[in-house]
Amino acid sequence: MNPSPSTLKDVAAAAGVSISTASRALAGNPVIAERTRERVRRCAEELSYRPNPQARALRSARTNIIGVALPSLINPFFARMAHAIQQEAADNHLCTIISSTAEDTKQLHYSLDVLANQRVDGILAVPHQGSEDSFEKLAKARIPVVLVDRELPGAGLPTVASDPLPGMDAAVAHLVTNGHRHIGYLPGPANASTARGRLAAFEEACGRHGVDKREIHRGDAMELLERGVEAIIAGDTTLSLNALETLHTHKVAIGQDLAFIGFDDNLTMRLQAYPVSVIDQGVDNLGRTALNLLIALIADADAPESITTPTSLIIRPSSDFRRPHT
Amino acid sequence: MNPSPSTLKDVAAAAGVSISTASRALAGNPVIAERTRERVRRCAEELSYRPNPQARALRSARTNIIGVALPSLINPFFARMAHAIQQEAADNHLCTIISSTAEDTKQLHYSLDVLANQRVDGILAVPHQGSEDSFEKLAKARIPVVLVDRELPGAGLPTVASDPLPGMDAAVAHLVTNGHRHIGYLPGPANASTARGRLAAFEEACGRHGVDKREIHRGDAMELLERGVEAIIAGDTTLSLNALETLHTHKVAIGQDLAFIGFDDNLTMRLQAYPVSVIDQGVDNLGRTALNLLIALIADADAPESITTPTSLIIRPSSDFRRPHT
Repeated sequence: MNPSPSTLKDVAAAAGVSISTASRALAGNPVIAERTRERVRRCAEELSYRPNPQARALRSARTNIIGVALPSLINPFFARMAHAIQQEAADNHLCTIISSTAEDTKQLHYSLDVLANQRVDGILAVPHQGSEDSFEKLAKARIPVVLVDRELPGAGLPTVASDPLPGMDAAVAHLVTNGHRHIGYLPGPANASTARGRLAAFEEACGRHGVDKREIHRGDAMELLERGVEAIIAGDTTLSLNALETLHTHKVAIGQDLAFIGFDDNLTMRLQAYPVSVIDQGVDNLGRTALNLLIALIADADAPESITTPTSLIIRPSSDFRRPHT
Repeated sequence: MNPSPSTLKDVAAAAGVSISTASRALAGNPVIAERTRERVRRCAEELSYRPNPQARALRSARTNIIGVALPSLINPFFARMAHAIQQEAADNHLCTIISSTAEDTKQLHYSLDVLANQRVDGILAVPHQGSEDSFEKLAKARIPVVLVDRELPGAGLPTVASDPLPGMDAAVAHLVTNGHRHIGYLPGPANASTARGRLAAFEEACGRHGVDKREIHRGDAMELLERGVEAIIAGDTTLSLNALETLHTHKVAIGQDLAFIGFDDNLTMRLQAYPVSVIDQGVDNLGRTALNLLIALIADADAPESITTPTSLIIRPSSDFRRPHT
């Protein structure tokens, strides 16, 4: 019986290092310590590891350029992601070229085309709902692709996305502990995988912490204010920024009358008279993890599996006050 | 005597259109109205206009891709500039690939190299002090380049930058009219052309509006607060954001105790309990103007001259209050 050939993943596991470290160690990359390189090489030999021929063919034409397709650069979440990817790429002696798709599926298709024609080593992309076709073309051209932030079910592409539950759970627990009884949630568009996942996480967290169903509210910021909620949780960066504008315009005393928790950290959330608590995806980690997964995929077409990163709660004055209930 | 041959600029002037419109009209671009295309063609004929042969040679190899090198994507000013350039490019059926240089001269050099090797039609770049060498290489490779935001004296490249004086003059006048007597200024790094120009504009504006020299202060936000200034003007985006953080941390009542005017508009300035007045460069206009200048340069290597855009003051509650002096 012929065992299936070892993969880079097997070598990495045997050497006790990450796939990306194993890949770079075998490539003789000097950023990896000599001792580690030696250990990885020994493991590869013992396992009779042979790099995937397809990956090797690609490698011979390496450009050391990574293409990045993001929906927007004025959304601070994606701008920060672009920055993190570019920094991690520089640390790995790679260059990035970034294309913004303006949240438009046609534009995404065009951007991926342009990046593919630029002979990049691989592509990191935030997909749009219904953009499967654009990615199929890349697969046919054997261009390694990793998705980040949003899933594209059925595309079969390795994806790095965050799990909203830990952060959402901590947020609801924090509000309940501080006596905020009517909790409003600002949900994102129902056709986005991230929005659906976060709403489900919010509802699960409310269930876990015994929030009465009559004390859970959904709607836009104005509707929630009119219903007299005591706390608001936003479901993404754009919703957080829009809610902040509504609250300021209506002179709501954030951190005194209303507890407000945003989603994703950014400058605008931090630089407030009452800095805003956020459910944090750790966008730097998300971007860096996605780039390392792509590096592994470029090194060995069989290697990577999708990765889920955690979310957490950053508590700031906007929500950190107790509400005395009579 | 042989008159010098007509340029695209002459044709544009004769037809009463911009250089970029003239260029697109002659290329038969359907985004230009048929009547305009006809008029431009007639003027070109009357002036015996011949496209620059070097530009024509380049054109035969057009990729319709514009390279953009910016210092940062987490600085909201440059993120917004990238967005504006990308939008204007899409309107002109061009695609952009963006490279961030992390304010590092080596990284800029590498980015320009990568973009040049990608066979872009031209490059828009924000230069760093001392980056002349990197641009000389592009000139040798006959790649059209337009600089934006910062000047690089001696590089002889067409540049689009803003004139700080109109905005600075309006800001000082606004503060003086409202009775703020001790005005503090946060200057940028003295080795940056923009920072020197803005400081000079601030001092000229103070002179024009009769501010006593003993009532003008310079330093960082903490120093200015300790000296008891009644108003603060910031010299760039980063200084504005840092000052906002200092003011919030020290619980200074912006718009009540202290008049604060930032430089460059962004979300964080707008989304405040007391939204922040800004001296606005109109970053969208800056980016779009630079792209159109590059389009003209790609069409005709002789055409473009540098362009200076105006600044203006956007008055918001952070500075819009009168101080009663006894």
